[in-house]
Amino acid sequence: MRNSKLVTLEEAIRKSGLKDGMTISFHHHFRGGDKVVNMVVAKLAEMGFKNLHLAASSLSDVHAPLIEHIKNGVITKISTSGLRGELANEISHGLMKEPVIFRSHGGRGSAIATGDLHIDVAFLGASSADELGNACGYSRSENAKSICGSLGYALPDARYADHVVVITDDLVAYPNVPKSISAADVESVVVVDSVGDSSKISAGAIRDSKNPRDILLAKTAAKVVINSGYFEDGFSIQTGTGGASLAVVKYIRESMLEKGIKASFALGGITAHMVKLHEEGLIGRLIDVQSFDKVAAESIKNDPFHQEVSAVEYASGVHQGSAVHALDIVILSALEVDVNFNVNVLVGSDGIIRGAIGGHQDTAADSALSIIVCPLLRGRIPCVVPKVTTLITPGKSVDVVVTEYGIAVNPGRPEVAERLKAAGLKVVDIHDLAAKATSIIGTPDALPFGDKVVGIVYNRDGKVLDEIKNIVE
Amino acid sequence: MRNSKLVTLEEAIRKSGLKDGMTISFHHHFRGGDKVVNMVVAKLAEMGFKNLHLAASSLSDVHAPLIEHIKNGVITKISTSGLRGELANEISHGLMKEPVIFRSHGGRGSAIATGDLHIDVAFLGASSADELGNACGYSRSENAKSICGSLGYALPDARYADHVVVITDDLVAYPNVPKSISAADVESVVVVDSVGDSSKISAGAIRDSKNPRDILLAKTAAKVVINSGYFEDGFSIQTGTGGASLAVVKYIRESMLEKGIKASFALGGITAHMVKLHEEGLIGRLIDVQSFDKVAAESIKNDPFHQEVSAVEYASGVHQGSAVHALDIVILSALEVDVNFNVNVLVGSDGIIRGAIGGHQDTAADSALSIIVCPLLRGRIPCVVPKVTTLITPGKSVDVVVTEYGIAVNPGRPEVAERLKAAGLKVVDIHDLAAKATSIIGTPDALPFGDKVVGIVYNRDGKVLDEIKNIVE
Repeated sequence: MRNSKLVTLEEAIRKSGLKDGMTISFHHHFRGGDKVVNMVVAKLAEMGFKNLHLAASSLSDVHAPLIEHIKNGVITKISTSGLRGELANEISHGLMKEPVIFRSHGGRGSAIATGDLHIDVAFLGASSADELGNACGYSRSENAKSICGSLGYALPDARYADHVVVITDDLVAYPNVPKSISAADVESVVVVDSVGDSSKISAGAIRDSKNPRDILLAKTAAKVVINSGYFEDGFSIQTGTGGASLAVVKYIRESMLEKGIKASFALGGITAHMVKLHEEGLIGRLIDVQSFDKVAAESIKNDPFHQEVSAVEYASGVHQGSAVHALDIVILSALEVDVNFNVNVLVGSDGIIRGAIGGHQDTAADSALSIIVCPLLRGRIPCVVPKVTTLITPGKSVDVVVTEYGIAVNPGRPEVAERLKAAGLKVVDIHDLAAKATSIIGTPDALPFGDKVVGIVYNRDGKVLDEIKNIVE
Repeated sequence: MRNSKLVTLEEAIRKSGLKDGMTISFHHHFRGGDKVVNMVVAKLAEMGFKNLHLAASSLSDVHAPLIEHIKNGVITKISTSGLRGELANEISHGLMKEPVIFRSHGGRGSAIATGDLHIDVAFLGASSADELGNACGYSRSENAKSICGSLGYALPDARYADHVVVITDDLVAYPNVPKSISAADVESVVVVDSVGDSSKISAGAIRDSKNPRDILLAKTAAKVVINSGYFEDGFSIQTGTGGASLAVVKYIRESMLEKGIKASFALGGITAHMVKLHEEGLIGRLIDVQSFDKVAAESIKNDPFHQEVSAVEYASGVHQGSAVHALDIVILSALEVDVNFNVNVLVGSDGIIRGAIGGHQDTAADSALSIIVCPLLRGRIPCVVPKVTTLITPGKSVDVVVTEYGIAVNPGRPEVAERLKAAGLKVVDIHDLAAKATSIIGTPDALPFGDKVVGIVYNRDGKVLDEIKNIVE
């Protein structure tokens, strides 16, 4: 067609004006199935680029090839919501000269919108795109290959980056509308064999748990929701990653039916459970920044009341209209919670990075009620601790902690504690939970952290919350 | 709700930080039924503001009250696509010290996106909104009052203005999604009795014509479309304002059915005719920057393949992905066409402003084939002339002129002329059309223009095309 933006990846990079030292960005909607980051960075390495700042919405196990590009000086700075796998392990041991910048999803959106995080060139994988760049995370074509649903985390990049390259494996006829990324924001379109493996979008932290303890925790958390004082017609809910958290919706369904209570909306990462409740009429709108499984990815394609939002619209702390400001209840997981209700979702109790901030800070801060579900222990590792290894979400944002040994309520929310007690739930002091963990497994040895700062954790408002030091074997 | 942005209009204005000399903006989706401009400017006058720059996407008859606000120094500068009625008349006679800036819809979008037109505070009427500011031009509530469909011309304002006030007469429960304007872009929400009279969105230049000459012109233009070489499966089409132009779609329908030709999309102002063809499967997508009637306004609410686009996405010349870049055929009207194919759609042959640039420049420039339909004469006024009163769309963008006395083809498009002749259509020299007009009504007296510049016409690229001088009685 006239004015086609179709080019090869190499041409797109040349056309972008990318220079050494600039910032490139990526989204993580394919999670463990992402193929775009490795493909683009390999090409940049081949073309001789150095000292690039890689600003992804998140990174995972699949991005281990970045280790070589870091060693070779192609990538010298990383900003992300999370790190997992061998890349996280190497970085935890001091691979990079510059510390990794960790931001929440809302914090990243805000930082991009305000210019704190300036993106020179965004490389955005899309499940379908036309030759002018209208792109989305699903496809109506027979050649549909890699489906991820919402492109919410890519939308701030598309809007604010100086130059936008859309990369797709399914080029469709113009106009590819409804669209997520607008052709007006796109400079180049690149067609490749595959942008991602759809089968992996529900892998890892968002698999549907069959673990009996997760199910117990989910059922308890559902009781907390139901008796919290916020479970009334028109309420809204979000469930974060983690098997127990995600499953809560399944267990509040019966009470919704019984009491004739409908939710106005469900927010955040959208799951098949939520789609089911929505289709039953129990949830009015699905506000989707990331589709957590294929059912959700198909639903967002077909259902106008299943709406995509950008990371900014979802969770920005500086945009007073972001959806978290209207959120009643959020259910989140944790690697560690401490006696001051501070939460760590990023660094394992072995000192190695193995998680992501995600929307944790954002939803905990702005929701009316934040509920953390986490076991007291994971194997020999305590999850309720005297002090978190790394501070990710400040305790003042956290209202309730659900464990299999009882429910702790932040002393700042006595009315919530009263409601749960009145419902016969086992409300305990969080210090007793920490003591219980210690009584079972003893006090773990102090972690062998070195002196090098390998990560800096930002709060959603752009202020530094904590530092992560290198771990020494 | 928590973080509600609901305030009174006066509070919204105070909160906005508006100061004398700043730029305020408005959209014209309610066309002759708009109530927002007059309401807001009356309030600003009452609050004592002076020297404001009013940057509307367009203005019409209903905005005559602005005359007093101009006389009182509240409004001292205007940017718009068009002017009509008493306001246009007064301005044509020299009401304002500063000339009015006329931009095309795409030109305004570009100017806002690039910062050439910086908006301090946007006041955007919406048919529904929630308390955080998610807003659109339709409503699903029982209280729906004023429906306008697409809010495409308001979207650049919402995205780029420093401060955005949404004004609605139908406050609905959060979340008001699907939405056009995102809550993340909105600072205040104001509820008023009425934002507009929906019955007037199809008034004026976009009424469905029953004029026999318009019908003849539309049928001839349909033959031009069909024989132009661009009428093939997957083609795209836009019809501009004016009865003959709008009606063309009706007359190509039969050929589409007969030849098994389907359009990939229809663009621009969307009409009931287009909705009908879309629902019949003859037009794949409706890309709607402005709903031209209530049928279109209802359709955009209910049909995900009837998609809203912003003015930037529609017609920007600096955004290479704007939809006009993919447009095959556009059918436009004219007040005057001259022998060099230059078009005037803004200033009447009496020298008084009575029209709007609209998307004329944008679509004529970027489409593969632009067709102007206009009668040779309107009463005693010639429409094909030696030289247009005011240059709006340069002749190099104009391919075909359809009159009731024959069809003129731009000499730069000989292949199109050949195709039309081969189809038996009456192709004539445009000089002969002008001469014919002169032979019927003689050469009109020169217009009594004064020396004062009352309007400056920009081309879509931001360069000055022409000036409009004051008219002297």
